[in-house]
Amino acid sequence: QKSQDNALISESDSDWILLNVGGKHFITSGSTLLLKEPQSMLARMFAGRHLMSPSAKDKTGAYLIDRSSKYFEPILNYLRHGLVILDKDINPEGVLEEAVFYGLDSMIPKLELLIEKYKSHHENHSLT
Amino acid sequence: QKSQDNALISESDSDWILLNVGGKHFITSGSTLLLKEPQSMLARMFAGRHLMSPSAKDKTGAYLIDRSSKYFEPILNYLRHGLVILDKDINPEGVLEEAVFYGLDSMIPKLELLIEKYKSHHENHSLT
Amino acid sequence: QKSQDNALISESDSDWILLNVGGKHFITSGSTLLLKEPQSMLARMFAGRHLMSPSAKDKTGAYLIDRSSKYFEPILNYLRHGLVILDKDINPEGVLEEAVFYGLDSMIPKLELLIEKYKSHHENHSLT
Amino acid sequence: QKSQDNALISESDSDWILLNVGGKHFITSGSTLLLKEPQSMLARMFAGRHLMSPSAKDKTGAYLIDRSSKYFEPILNYLRHGLVILDKDINPEGVLEEAVFYGLDSMIPKLELLIEKYKSHHENHSLT
Amino acid sequence: QKSQDNALISESDSDWILLNVGGKHFITSGSTLLLKEPQSMLARMFAGRHLMSPSAKDKTGAYLIDRSSKYFEPILNYLRHGLVILDKDINPEGVLEEAVFYGLDSMIPKLELLIEKYKSHHENHSLT
Repeated sequence: QKSQDNALISESDSDWILLNVGGKHFITSGSTLLLKEPQSMLARMFAGRHLMSPSAKDKTGAYLIDRSSKYFEPILNYLRHGLVILDKDINPEGVLEEAVFYGLDSMIPKLELLIEKYKSHHENHSLT
Repeated sequence: QKSQDNALISESDSDWILLNVGGKHFITSGSTLLLKEPQSMLARMFAGRHLMSPSAKDKTGAYLIDRSSKYFEPILNYLRHGLVILDKDINPEGVLEEAVFYGLDSMIPKLELLIEKYKSHHENHSLT
Repeated sequence: QKSQDNALISESDSDWILLNVGGKHFITSGSTLLLKEPQSMLARMFAGRHLMSPSAKDKTGAYLIDRSSKYFEPILNYLRHGLVILDKDINPEGVLEEAVFYGLDSMIPKLELLIEKYKSHHENHSLT
Repeated sequence: QKSQDNALISESDSDWILLNVGGKHFITSGSTLLLKEPQSMLARMFAGRHLMSPSAKDKTGAYLIDRSSKYFEPILNYLRHGLVILDKDINPEGVLEEAVFYGLDSMIPKLELLIEKYKSHHENHSLT
Repeated sequence: QKSQDNALISESDSDWILLNVGGKHFITSGSTLLLKEPQSMLARMFAGRHLMSPSAKDKTGAYLIDRSSKYFEPILNYLRHGLVILDKDINPEGVLEEAVFYGLDSMIPKLELLIEKYKSHHENHSLT
């Protein structure tokens, strides 16, 4: 369990990345953004973050992203532990749009499956 | 996928627009507000933002808008990706009022369709 | 649509009113608070706001109100556009308590109607 | 309605109490915390607040309380208007734990009644 | 009830711990994190917090944790009062991932039971 202890709070300053997604702040680590899906647009983006223009950050030093904050939470959790977990009231189509935007290819078929279930559930409700 | 990389974090400072909608901050880009529905009241408003009085902004530099923050989120997502996506617990009538206010004509018939479904679903629940 | 453009972002500084309702900030305009229901306790209160003691404001200049923030959102939207719009998970009884407190007489019968529907829906669920 | 006007925004500075409950700020008045249930642990606690150690406050001057913020909202509303009002998605067992902790004896039987209803509703859903 | 009064607001400064979980601040006490489940990874972590590198904290002095904020709330409440209480719309699988990460062994079987119920409820909805 030693390695998990180290994972909880990281040793080096530069590993923490502050994000401002559509006006809401998130904090995560470089390893979460870069290692889970290294070929994604998101990973490639932040791999080169030290070359970015200062205008890409807000006053608090958070990287600005012009996307929904609400649907970003399950995206970030997926990068943290590899599972797609949505609350009952969250529309999976909203999360799918974000997964496509960030280029998280492994997440897309999982979300499409959830959308199928969500729709069939919803139609049962509205048609019967 | 190069162009998408550029879309994630914009190069120029002046492209970011901070909004204070009813007390909650949102951040987006000028291209999201201006390009998706250029004839809308919202787009015409922010096209001329450099001429606005300083009193139109709060202390953090965010443009003040006296409208609901809750129903603004799906409005902004629509301008970002062109889809109307609402969570199950969000009343589409609340979003419609905002779409009408901001003059987003292409969004209105889509919301009216969702309201039809929402109402028929709700009535099934309460009458049977 | 010219007048609507002007409505979006107001010209004069003094028209914006910052509220701290139970710990959450809301921003609105004097015309929203004063003109929609001028005989209400809320309107009469803020009509005389320039005479208020400085202790009625927090450090950010927001007027302090010792009431629920959650149920205040539909109240403020009602003053903005005249419709009572609640999300599915919001208990209309919570909003009614606020409407009574703020003296919004025109809103009360509309909420009582929603409470009837909400209760009959809820009882169907719990009794069958 | 004169007395209600006075109730909206209080005259004296010292009457406002800022709370930091589990990381979220709430603002209320001494009369709300002290007068509705004067024998409660919460009331007795804040009756003696001027004797408290400075370490009981955070940097903004809010009293620190190591409890859930989510379930505190209906607690505070109860102290404001005397009614137990919960949204559909709020688990009344979470609120009960807080009412017991704060020693709000008059609120406890009302919550136990709601828990009965909540459970019978939930079981109908999962068993039939 | 004397001891409960003391529990509400702690006497010593150093007992309060500020956490930044995925971008959201929580405040709790050392006794909540250390005493309820002393063998957990979380407790062992914070037992040694005075030895941590300064880079483990954000600018406000909060310990940084790269995990979901939404599913952390029921985790923290469990450490406060020993009960697993989830709102209807919260997916218990999201909380389970956090309980496993933080090493809260006594919480895991309780969450697995809730997941069973949640799934059977959901399937009834979607399959009939």
